[in-house]
Amino acid sequence: MFDALKVKNECVEWIRSFFEQNGKGCNAVIGISGGKDSSIVAALCVEALGRERVIGVLMPCGEQADIDMAKLLVNHLNIKHYIINIKDAVEALKKNIPFELSKQSLTNLPARVRMTTLYAVSQSNNGRVANTCNMSEDWVGYSTRYGDAAGDFSPCANITVAEMKQIGRVLGLPDVLVDKVPIDGLCGKTDEENLGFTYQELDRYIRTGEIDDINKKSKIDDMHRKNLFKLEVMPSFRPSES
Amino acid sequence: MFDALKVKNECVEWIRSFFEQNGKGCNAVIGISGGKDSSIVAALCVEALGRERVIGVLMPCGEQADIDMAKLLVNHLNIKHYIINIKDAVEALKKNIPFELSKQSLTNLPARVRMTTLYAVSQSNNGRVANTCNMSEDWVGYSTRYGDAAGDFSPCANITVAEMKQIGRVLGLPDVLVDKVPIDGLCGKTDEENLGFTYQELDRYIRTGEIDDINKKSKIDDMHRKNLFKLEVMPSFRPSES
Repeated sequence: MFDALKVKNECVEWIRSFFEQNGKGCNAVIGISGGKDSSIVAALCVEALGRERVIGVLMPCGEQADIDMAKLLVNHLNIKHYIINIKDAVEALKKNIPFELSKQSLTNLPARVRMTTLYAVSQSNNGRVANTCNMSEDWVGYSTRYGDAAGDFSPCANITVAEMKQIGRVLGLPDVLVDKVPIDGLCGKTDEENLGFTYQELDRYIRTGEIDDINKKSKIDDMHRKNLFKLEVMPSFRPSES
Repeated sequence: MFDALKVKNECVEWIRSFFEQNGKGCNAVIGISGGKDSSIVAALCVEALGRERVIGVLMPCGEQADIDMAKLLVNHLNIKHYIINIKDAVEALKKNIPFELSKQSLTNLPARVRMTTLYAVSQSNNGRVANTCNMSEDWVGYSTRYGDAAGDFSPCANITVAEMKQIGRVLGLPDVLVDKVPIDGLCGKTDEENLGFTYQELDRYIRTGEIDDINKKSKIDDMHRKNLFKLEVMPSFRPSES
């Protein structure tokens, strides 16, 4: 059985110790999407560092339908926050690139502009950027390299979606945030529709190795293998000893 | 003695094998600054993959005084290239951030916008992004995390500045590119003025452990220690076994 309270406490302690060693007195800077992951990471940082040392950054691209959820979170935690619209920067990049961008480019571009924005905030506010990916997403590479996969520290990279929800409840976050169905802002589909399997199936497979549908198993294995590089150090050439 | 021809040949072979394993038939995408590092990486990729599979991306921010050097390189190698000005995107970000950016933010922001641009090009052109950092720069962390420190493969991360120059000559690059003194585009100072020691001193220290000036030694050691995190996987919390 997953002991959410115990893991939450360990994670809070780990965040404290990360800052002790890598940025004494620094602030945690977190991109707040209005979904459960960024909500949970923000709440963990508040418990670890105190609300005065946590900065939320809301980064809509034009109009964001569920921006109220992000506002609910920063109000719930009573943390300092900035709203920085990234649309002008995204449009400026698109305008100056002299060919049509692929679908994959268009999906990942805003994530990298958000990372750039987050680091600009962090480096102007004595910050350390929190990565908000969870283990299930990382397992199948459901993130943008050098975009939302970036950060200075990652509190939830080894916590599955199912476990995240339990931690969210232990932290006393509003149900509406913890239970929010993750939707791809670009195409309007849910993550699970995009992936072709449910997080419940994926989480069970990660934790027990068990999965009923053999096609889903090979799909997950395939995504995992193809995306492992995102979690590793970039490969580099090393000259042989002469 | 450093055998530039041998190391160049090994590196070319390594690039070929990286693409064989991680992107058969893909193109190498390289940000071309007009300095020696991007010139050498581009030339290595041309030798490894053929000039048809190498794309140079020139990314001035407004007017770039030495843009002609970058053009010289793409003409010399006869590779396809794009010129994409990042100024509008940088200005759009600055405009929408509701406080004054720190000096550090302002230095690193364009590097991250360039990374974002490079990946947009790469993901629309069946690409893999080349990292162009050399070992001397990496040793003291003279790069922007998730900016020019990003990439999919790094041919020169274990080659010092002195060794790079020898490889540049073996590759037959114009002297004016190989010998170009690296200048920080932002403040107009040379790298060596910014760092407080010469690359010659740094390279000797990296390769032999020897350095005459004890103050420079501790400066290098300090920078190395403080910047090691840039070369490592982001730290993440791992729950204890229950």
